[in-house]
Amino acid sequence: MSEIDIIKETYEKIKNMEIRGAGRIGRAAAKALKEYALKISNLSEEEFKNKMKEAGDLLISARPTAVSLPNAVKYVLKGLNEENPKEKIIERADEFINSSLKAIENIGKFGANRIKDGDTILTHCNSEAAISVIKTAYDEGKDIKVFCTETRPRNQGYITAKTLYDYGIDVTLIVDSAVRYFIKDIDIVVVGADAITANGCLVNKIGTSQIALIANESRVPFLTAAETYKFHPKTIVGELIEIEERDPEEVTTFEEKYKGIKIRNPAFDVTPAKYIDAIITEIGLIPPQGAWYIIEKYFGWLEK
Amino acid sequence: MSEIDIIKETYEKIKNMEIRGAGRIGRAAAKALKEYALKISNLSEEEFKNKMKEAGDLLISARPTAVSLPNAVKYVLKGLNEENPKEKIIERADEFINSSLKAIENIGKFGANRIKDGDTILTHCNSEAAISVIKTAYDEGKDIKVFCTETRPRNQGYITAKTLYDYGIDVTLIVDSAVRYFIKDIDIVVVGADAITANGCLVNKIGTSQIALIANESRVPFLTAAETYKFHPKTIVGELIEIEERDPEEVTTFEEKYKGIKIRNPAFDVTPAKYIDAIITEIGLIPPQGAWYIIEKYFGWLEK
Amino acid sequence: MSEIDIIKETYEKIKNMEIRGAGRIGRAAAKALKEYALKISNLSEEEFKNKMKEAGDLLISARPTAVSLPNAVKYVLKGLNEENPKEKIIERADEFINSSLKAIENIGKFGANRIKDGDTILTHCNSEAAISVIKTAYDEGKDIKVFCTETRPRNQGYITAKTLYDYGIDVTLIVDSAVRYFIKDIDIVVVGADAITANGCLVNKIGTSQIALIANESRVPFLTAAETYKFHPKTIVGELIEIEERDPEEVTTFEEKYKGIKIRNPAFDVTPAKYIDAIITEIGLIPPQGAWYIIEKYFGWLEK
Amino acid sequence: MSEIDIIKETYEKIKNMEIRGAGRIGRAAAKALKEYALKISNLSEEEFKNKMKEAGDLLISARPTAVSLPNAVKYVLKGLNEENPKEKIIERADEFINSSLKAIENIGKFGANRIKDGDTILTHCNSEAAISVIKTAYDEGKDIKVFCTETRPRNQGYITAKTLYDYGIDVTLIVDSAVRYFIKDIDIVVVGADAITANGCLVNKIGTSQIALIANESRVPFLTAAETYKFHPKTIVGELIEIEERDPEEVTTFEEKYKGIKIRNPAFDVTPAKYIDAIITEIGLIPPQGAWYIIEKYFGWLEK
Amino acid sequence: MSEIDIIKETYEKIKNMEIRGAGRIGRAAAKALKEYALKISNLSEEEFKNKMKEAGDLLISARPTAVSLPNAVKYVLKGLNEENPKEKIIERADEFINSSLKAIENIGKFGANRIKDGDTILTHCNSEAAISVIKTAYDEGKDIKVFCTETRPRNQGYITAKTLYDYGIDVTLIVDSAVRYFIKDIDIVVVGADAITANGCLVNKIGTSQIALIANESRVPFLTAAETYKFHPKTIVGELIEIEERDPEEVTTFEEKYKGIKIRNPAFDVTPAKYIDAIITEIGLIPPQGAWYIIEKYFGWLEK
Amino acid sequence: MSEIDIIKETYEKIKNMEIRGAGRIGRAAAKALKEYALKISNLSEEEFKNKMKEAGDLLISARPTAVSLPNAVKYVLKGLNEENPKEKIIERADEFINSSLKAIENIGKFGANRIKDGDTILTHCNSEAAISVIKTAYDEGKDIKVFCTETRPRNQGYITAKTLYDYGIDVTLIVDSAVRYFIKDIDIVVVGADAITANGCLVNKIGTSQIALIANESRVPFLTAAETYKFHPKTIVGELIEIEERDPEEVTTFEEKYKGIKIRNPAFDVTPAKYIDAIITEIGLIPPQGAWYIIEKYFGWLEK
Repeated sequence: MSEIDIIKETYEKIKNMEIRGAGRIGRAAAKALKEYALKISNLSEEEFKNKMKEAGDLLISARPTAVSLPNAVKYVLKGLNEENPKEKIIERADEFINSSLKAIENIGKFGANRIKDGDTILTHCNSEAAISVIKTAYDEGKDIKVFCTETRPRNQGYITAKTLYDYGIDVTLIVDSAVRYFIKDIDIVVVGADAITANGCLVNKIGTSQIALIANESRVPFLTAAETYKFHPKTIVGELIEIEERDPEEVTTFEEKYKGIKIRNPAFDVTPAKYIDAIITEIGLIPPQGAWYIIEKYFGWLEK
Repeated sequence: MSEIDIIKETYEKIKNMEIRGAGRIGRAAAKALKEYALKISNLSEEEFKNKMKEAGDLLISARPTAVSLPNAVKYVLKGLNEENPKEKIIERADEFINSSLKAIENIGKFGANRIKDGDTILTHCNSEAAISVIKTAYDEGKDIKVFCTETRPRNQGYITAKTLYDYGIDVTLIVDSAVRYFIKDIDIVVVGADAITANGCLVNKIGTSQIALIANESRVPFLTAAETYKFHPKTIVGELIEIEERDPEEVTTFEEKYKGIKIRNPAFDVTPAKYIDAIITEIGLIPPQGAWYIIEKYFGWLEK
Repeated sequence: MSEIDIIKETYEKIKNMEIRGAGRIGRAAAKALKEYALKISNLSEEEFKNKMKEAGDLLISARPTAVSLPNAVKYVLKGLNEENPKEKIIERADEFINSSLKAIENIGKFGANRIKDGDTILTHCNSEAAISVIKTAYDEGKDIKVFCTETRPRNQGYITAKTLYDYGIDVTLIVDSAVRYFIKDIDIVVVGADAITANGCLVNKIGTSQIALIANESRVPFLTAAETYKFHPKTIVGELIEIEERDPEEVTTFEEKYKGIKIRNPAFDVTPAKYIDAIITEIGLIPPQGAWYIIEKYFGWLEK
Repeated sequence: MSEIDIIKETYEKIKNMEIRGAGRIGRAAAKALKEYALKISNLSEEEFKNKMKEAGDLLISARPTAVSLPNAVKYVLKGLNEENPKEKIIERADEFINSSLKAIENIGKFGANRIKDGDTILTHCNSEAAISVIKTAYDEGKDIKVFCTETRPRNQGYITAKTLYDYGIDVTLIVDSAVRYFIKDIDIVVVGADAITANGCLVNKIGTSQIALIANESRVPFLTAAETYKFHPKTIVGELIEIEERDPEEVTTFEEKYKGIKIRNPAFDVTPAKYIDAIITEIGLIPPQGAWYIIEKYFGWLEK
Repeated sequence: MSEIDIIKETYEKIKNMEIRGAGRIGRAAAKALKEYALKISNLSEEEFKNKMKEAGDLLISARPTAVSLPNAVKYVLKGLNEENPKEKIIERADEFINSSLKAIENIGKFGANRIKDGDTILTHCNSEAAISVIKTAYDEGKDIKVFCTETRPRNQGYITAKTLYDYGIDVTLIVDSAVRYFIKDIDIVVVGADAITANGCLVNKIGTSQIALIANESRVPFLTAAETYKFHPKTIVGELIEIEERDPEEVTTFEEKYKGIKIRNPAFDVTPAKYIDAIITEIGLIPPQGAWYIIEKYFGWLEK
Repeated sequence: MSEIDIIKETYEKIKNMEIRGAGRIGRAAAKALKEYALKISNLSEEEFKNKMKEAGDLLISARPTAVSLPNAVKYVLKGLNEENPKEKIIERADEFINSSLKAIENIGKFGANRIKDGDTILTHCNSEAAISVIKTAYDEGKDIKVFCTETRPRNQGYITAKTLYDYGIDVTLIVDSAVRYFIKDIDIVVVGADAITANGCLVNKIGTSQIALIANESRVPFLTAAETYKFHPKTIVGELIEIEERDPEEVTTFEEKYKGIKIRNPAFDVTPAKYIDAIITEIGLIPPQGAWYIIEKYFGWLEK
């Protein structure tokens, strides 16, 4: 097996979605780059750098819209600009993998610091990171209550409710329309993230932005829990995140008599930075306006 | 049959819900008072007034929470304070009945004046008055589009969508969570009303208040279509409108595995006056802060 | 004793402040006008009207800045424009007196309708009307808590706290600066009024307007309890209410070493209509934008 | 000359614009109705009413978009619903004419009450009513300064500046874009009105609504000076006021090289009620939400 | 004396509060670390690092809630990650000490740049940094006026007023409730800081957050003057700053008759980032959203 | 020619404005520093550093208010703190020059990413960077429309309109007062920048701040396109940017009759960070709160 096959194999697995999920994709890419760096030898620094860059580009091309993939590659390859690039590559790949593996746990720990004994928390959809925050607060012995929205059209809120209920937590389920009615009973909102943009906006499950607006109207803190590899690199050069419109059948399977009525079914919406109190990441809690700095500092996406 | 039986009969029908619906209840009460006034005779003005007041009190007691019932009685009995009270009673009963019968039509006409050719309208739930506005605009040849929310948990939005679609109108259905996503495509919001309070708040289907908040954030006009008999008389003495919590089963029939998760299912919420651009009534378009004046002027509810 | 002496005697008592307090002054004026109307006789309608107007002008001149005085006179003299002016004058004088006597009680009743079992209420300064609302809610068996601000510089909040505490109510006292800190624990704010302007502003004890701003920021309802004779008639022709600056010694009696530091001590501030959810009057609950209508309808102050 | 010729003559003069200006048109219509009522005789009350209504309809048809015309007719003809309709018609016609003649003067007087010694006032465009407020404040000896906007594209601000300067007032002219820059130096904004809508919006010269927004952002009071006959009657049945787009040549006479660039030149914009502190009318100062009441009470436009 | 005694001695002095004040505590810790680094020798780099870390941990444990203590330790020990760690430690300790010593002076200089000739400044409580800003502006010959709030319950505003007055500055004292009344006369608000959080909130004397809200409502700039060692490190991992509730006796020594009335006396409140225009630090002026970067960059608190 | 003459020559050309324009000035300074570094030799590192600093100070003194001049000098001289300072100086000078040369192009590319097919863009004044964004979007084949404001008093909007029209773009011109009228037809606002402050404010052509306020009221994104050398370095130590007041004759050449009317003509205004969605720079898109970081990181302006 030639050295580049290490990269190609991972490329294939990401491409055909054998490897899925933001965290797993990122870690697979970092691991491949590390192993590749270890394998290739007897090269000038120049040659080494070029080979690594080519490997990175190949990996990224496997699934260009997966946010964590280019972030992982960029994170690791930043080592190329330092002395002892090979060592640095290996060190940074390990760092990325370890940090990523601990991300959900760390987010849970940091986010739970924001939950007070007696708090009622509202969450939306089904986010591993947000659930980690809630469970950790519960594990710390805090007396908490949770409100879950249904999260139409796919009703992921039921899964969240079930998960938390099974964990022993007091859970109430409400329809998405009832958020403003109950917001005065809520002490804090915690949701997950599909992506964070360079100017601090949150791309998340449809309905998130109106919950944030409602929380803001009643001065209820709104937090998003987001692993740093969710920070969207291309938004730093102004790219917009396309909002996917999904199959109308998710909303309803119209019987015959409803034929002709159109259905629009966007999967996500965009919450502006001004309605977000803080982003909980695995490296700490930052204001949304700090997102671009993470993209730049840790992943090196800024133009030179 | 003694004269008071006219009143008693109507009282019974309202009480046992043979007569239902805000408009029908109000008109039945007005009609009963008129017929009663015509029947009773050979009375001093003093005696006449007392008898009429007793009749009114009896009618109101049939269903104290039906907003239109006390409004109709008060509207008619305001004639007692004028000269020729009997004549006035009859005149005012007819006025109430006629105005009420034309209410939906008039609201349609006035509201349609606010719809421009090319407008996209958002509506929520299933309101006869709001639908009248939309249909009238369509009948006037305006090229309009309509977005309907699902309106969980009972999905009345599907009925609205079907009604408008069958009428020939271009209809799109969205989940309740998608309102903020689409609001930039909306030119005007028109919803109905369950009740209007003395200080201009709108009590309507759960989710209405967050739509109003969203419309306000994006400077989209928000109108409510409300017959004047929907204006809640007791709010003028500070009474709060109790928000009904309905059967959790409306939200979901939990299978065994969800046992223990609570469900809260409030049927209505309260939209503050500041998010309402105007109320379309059958007597004209008023700012929400004018509601108390209607309650006072037409129904005479202010304390003396 | 000549007839006009009835008026003059009341004029003197108001002028020399033997009769004090908004309610008492208004009732004394109404009573004097009634007695005067009963006394003067054998006059043409024209002569009667002129005499009554002169009497009214004289009374008003006793203390031009007492809001209730011109309101009482105007309220009574509106009868001059109707048939049987003498009768009407007497009827209206009685109406004013009775309504005024019941004002605090009625305001208590209407306002208490807005208080829910379990509510925590914030009040500022020491208002008879606001206290009536709180006591009535307590009398109705509602489980309530009250936060009182100190109300610097004269600390009237201590009197309010003491009054409510002695009545059996759970009372907490805070400094004026702590309102925003505690507002999330408050369900409703109820304050009194020194005057209400034609465009719905509230003139009340210094600090009221910042409490209203804070309540608004957190979506906590803000109510003012105001007898209708507190509605400032001259504001309907645009007059501004002058804000009294009181003796600096109220704030502190500076020892020698503080000599030279200036003190500003305004007694009142102005809360804009947009931060007021409703005004509780003895005739009912109105939006602040309805104030001018009360001034016009009941007291007849609009220009013709 | 037959009696109806009185009406026809006025109709013609309004139609061919011999009689122009909101005030003059309204007064001419009132005068014609009065003279016509005096002329026609020997009629039953029924016949009299019908004739008067026909006369009113004819007058209104002379120029349907002139707001003051239908208002004047409605104001006068409200007398038909009272006893002694002929007398009432005459009385109301005189009232309308007198009130209208004094309107600018009264508005000046009431508005000046809102101006304090030392105030700096901002005005926009060239409004007789707003200028009356400013001049009256100056006449009262108040030390005032005035900022005038240019008011592109027709630069009516220069006329206002010149008028006030010639009156002896300290005047500064700024470009329309500089309002937010200077707003911290402004104590109060006073503008005129082309029309007031039923829900309290102000239709006025393009640029007014952004001045109101800016004033609101900095907590500077924003007043509009509007004669009651400017209150748009048809808005009470929901009609929208059409915003005139004027000749692009008002903006610029493009030389050849600019050919192809489009110009949009709307003459007016709409300021929402929430940015207006009060409307100064000749009958007093009201909140914008009171506009519909004026339309109803004085002009009787509400549906029955 | 063994080397570690250098650390222990400082530890003791901080613990028993012989060394007090944010600046002094921080500098003492930095100095101890420097001296300790100079003393210990003949160690491998590994051993040196471990010893330094142990020393740092010991120092921090002396008073874990003193914000400046861990910041000083972290600042100095960041040198351990660089080449020549001992040299770096010494260099960084000196840097911290010098910067800290000049902090108040530098903040004064930078903050004074924001004060214009003729400005009226509002301050709250008694902050050395805020006073430095005001005095420096005065020293630069600017004609300034200052409003001080009383700052109940401990009235530190009197000390500020006295300090500035003695310096020759025109000072006016107002009650805390009068801020909204006077805000239109204020050009800029400058307050100190007890702590700054990672997402840019300001923890400061009770009442600060409502002043910020009021300033924001009237578009008056609100600045906080904060030495960087006030930036709370643990907030970057989501920890909440506990708000101390102090002795009710600070508010009032209730006589017998007030027995039973509760008093709540929180010492601080939290001002959200959105109401803060800038933070003036000794290294420059930053937006509040930059706080986390300072915590990370200078003190190295972010997780890896 | 002595080495320092390289610097002196550039100094002279900047001083006498032979070299003008933010970009050209910055590049000239960087080039001079590079050439000077290449020329001077046989110096100790200490001497080299001192000479370079002196050269930098001299250059900056040529035109202290030109924002790009000190930024360029600081950018280059940051190399003095690294190893191999001479090499670094040369490297950084080249970097600055290249980045600056590509700035407008890069900004165009990044900004165009934010423009969607079918968008209508509003711009103000005449900005090279904003025009680059619009042209690039057009070049990418997007179907766009542009609204240009006149931009009184100098009407630079006509130049922008002409430039874009000649490029083939659909252009509409409006008066500055019409922005709020048309804002509902606008999808995005893109303007240039004269300077960006450390706390994220935008200093730009008079009228910009009110456009931003209007865009914010209607939830329309507001972007500014600014080369990083426009970021004002001295604001990081709190300095205010003085707003130039220009010749009144720019507004109007008053004929005789207008004599005495004052004209105020500020050239710029300040848009607060909260109304700015993002800043498009040549190195990427950042939130306004990131500006200070750019000033610090790239130009090294923070105090130590």
